[in-house]
Amino acid sequence: MADKLTGACIIGQSGGPTSVINASAYGAISAALEAEEINQVLGADHGITGVLADKLYDMGQEDPQELAYLKNTPSSELGSCRYKLADPDADDTDYKRILDVFKKHNVRYFFYNGGNDSMDTCDKISRYMSKSGWDCRVMGIPKTIDNDLFGTDHCPGFASAAKYIATSAMEVSKDSKVYPTGQVTIIEIMGRHAGWLAGSAALATYFGSGPDLVYLPEVDFDMDAFLNDVERIYNEKKNCLVAVSEGLHFADGTFVSQAKTSSTDGFGHAQLGGLAARLAEMVKERTGAKVRPIELSLLQRCGAHLASKTDLEEAEMAGRKAVEAAVSGVTGKMVAFERDKDASGNYVCKYILLPLTAVANAEKKVPLEWITPEHNNVTKDFIDYVLPLIQGEPERPTECSLPRYAKLKKVQA
Amino acid sequence: MADKLTGACIIGQSGGPTSVINASAYGAISAALEAEEINQVLGADHGITGVLADKLYDMGQEDPQELAYLKNTPSSELGSCRYKLADPDADDTDYKRILDVFKKHNVRYFFYNGGNDSMDTCDKISRYMSKSGWDCRVMGIPKTIDNDLFGTDHCPGFASAAKYIATSAMEVSKDSKVYPTGQVTIIEIMGRHAGWLAGSAALATYFGSGPDLVYLPEVDFDMDAFLNDVERIYNEKKNCLVAVSEGLHFADGTFVSQAKTSSTDGFGHAQLGGLAARLAEMVKERTGAKVRPIELSLLQRCGAHLASKTDLEEAEMAGRKAVEAAVSGVTGKMVAFERDKDASGNYVCKYILLPLTAVANAEKKVPLEWITPEHNNVTKDFIDYVLPLIQGEPERPTECSLPRYAKLKKVQA
Repeated sequence: MADKLTGACIIGQSGGPTSVINASAYGAISAALEAEEINQVLGADHGITGVLADKLYDMGQEDPQELAYLKNTPSSELGSCRYKLADPDADDTDYKRILDVFKKHNVRYFFYNGGNDSMDTCDKISRYMSKSGWDCRVMGIPKTIDNDLFGTDHCPGFASAAKYIATSAMEVSKDSKVYPTGQVTIIEIMGRHAGWLAGSAALATYFGSGPDLVYLPEVDFDMDAFLNDVERIYNEKKNCLVAVSEGLHFADGTFVSQAKTSSTDGFGHAQLGGLAARLAEMVKERTGAKVRPIELSLLQRCGAHLASKTDLEEAEMAGRKAVEAAVSGVTGKMVAFERDKDASGNYVCKYILLPLTAVANAEKKVPLEWITPEHNNVTKDFIDYVLPLIQGEPERPTECSLPRYAKLKKVQA
Repeated sequence: MADKLTGACIIGQSGGPTSVINASAYGAISAALEAEEINQVLGADHGITGVLADKLYDMGQEDPQELAYLKNTPSSELGSCRYKLADPDADDTDYKRILDVFKKHNVRYFFYNGGNDSMDTCDKISRYMSKSGWDCRVMGIPKTIDNDLFGTDHCPGFASAAKYIATSAMEVSKDSKVYPTGQVTIIEIMGRHAGWLAGSAALATYFGSGPDLVYLPEVDFDMDAFLNDVERIYNEKKNCLVAVSEGLHFADGTFVSQAKTSSTDGFGHAQLGGLAARLAEMVKERTGAKVRPIELSLLQRCGAHLASKTDLEEAEMAGRKAVEAAVSGVTGKMVAFERDKDASGNYVCKYILLPLTAVANAEKKVPLEWITPEHNNVTKDFIDYVLPLIQGEPERPTECSLPRYAKLKKVQA
């Protein structure tokens, strides 16, 4: 058992928001408020930039009921950032400032909730604190809709986005088949380097009404093969629904969304619209079909009304476990998930701890064997992986049938 | 009491689908299956085109449980069409064919579910049947997310789309404020001529987190005023959320989505992207802000997972009332809604019947007094109008936490 370390804690949110990142914040805040060793719970305004600016909110001043509403409030309620800390050996200005702020508030616990880059930030702060002799336990809490964090079976935030995508794909699939005149519909899904989200659209097909074709960024995109696939299906049934990852790229690494296509105006003017709009132009040229591009955009990462209960509970638990581990003496680790089965063979999530150094800056992609040989869909293994994660409908507080979100006072410490 | 008229009925779906058009189909089908006078219930494949093709499904062959799933299945499960019948005086080919099909199946009841154009179709068929002496009762069932049908307080389908839009606007509003760097977000909403849907985004603001600015097509769009509005709000709080109707137009009637803007490439090449993308370019040029255009596209009209229980029940009842009225002798009418209050002052919907001739081809727009004098938002009267309509969460059948839709056998008659 480690020495008892008493002091304040800081909780910060970082990177792109998700539907359940506030559930992790709630897990960490409520566990910290309960912990005897933690005498003040501070929320950083916009992640590490709030620490640098000494803009910290005293979470103990919040109404407990409003804090509980965090569980169903999408996006990062404390504010997020994409600030990258320098290498401390090259420039330690930020680190000195962080140490000053930590000392000022007697911060002995630092919890940072984010993806790859945030775990790097977390790791650097952890190492700097140890080097400078300030006793402070630093823990990472995973988060990313992209599901690309290394070492964990999956990431909080992914499953809720996946559920939003699969449900929307089912609905759009129904809508896209309504006219006898036929239609090609292209849904653009987030995921610059990993295809976990785009692949999740295939759940809709598995349950009866979804995309015919799914393209992931793990493999090079072949425009001819794509156009042939779409044309074949459209000719066959006068309808084709396609799900594409925004990160599709050609063999030379160029993103399809940025590449010149035959439809691109030759004068080099910037064209509006993203990948789906570009592919739609190509498909229209080839097939003559009515083509509808749909970009799920921010909707997929903030669609909290379709959150997975499993995801929400795991996200909350990840925050809670980080606090419990730190209080018990752990530092320099990230909470991670291991997939297990109970006696009846049902999915169970086990919480483990991984060294931050092992997680920072690594990426986990969809295994190539979970992509069909034709590179135009995912396999049953992919479905089996995602399905348990999207299960369950959480309670959803509403006011006049619209979502009721947390209203924090944000009293500065 | 009218003479008892015994025979088959046809139910057809027409125009753009909604989240609850199948609930109206269910209301009509189940009432027709119960009606003693109706000995066969036929569903037309793709509306009137299915009648012309004599492609009719025997709804009596369906599993009652699957029919009940129609209530939560978005889009038009029988298929829709946008087929416009000719003026019978100019060309009666289609009408003769319809009469033949009616005679073949002894069709004595025709129920058509759609918007303006569909009520015109309905009206033409009604008058032709009367003229030709074929005793057939023809009833319209209202439907349109655009809420622009004349004579009815509101239309089935509108409120569920409004609820989807308001909820999504709340979520996007949360997401758009996450970074300290600031952002302008522009949400493009359906409604070519009427701003009911775009205005509904303001519900989100009313409940704490929604658009700062809302632009409706009922008034001419002023680009300078728009850019000034956005710039002012962005400068004030480093964030601005805007909701725009796809039908925004300049004073000369040109749609903003089609007009040349200063960002349009001078060579006249077609540009990809819709209104939101165009406005985003303009705002970026003016403010230098990060701008994110989001088009709700088909999602808003098929988002059945966010359906309003009130809307769903009214949609089902509209179908049922049409059948009950026809069986009791009514013809040439559309079921419409009247807003009433119960003894406690709570919203109640009353069902009335309007002559098809009064409804066909007329349009109901947002009253100008419900738009702010600055033309950049809606008033409290607008909110009070929409709010009762979006109330309640219907039961939502799921299978493995994804929607469970109706699976019809569609046995041809």
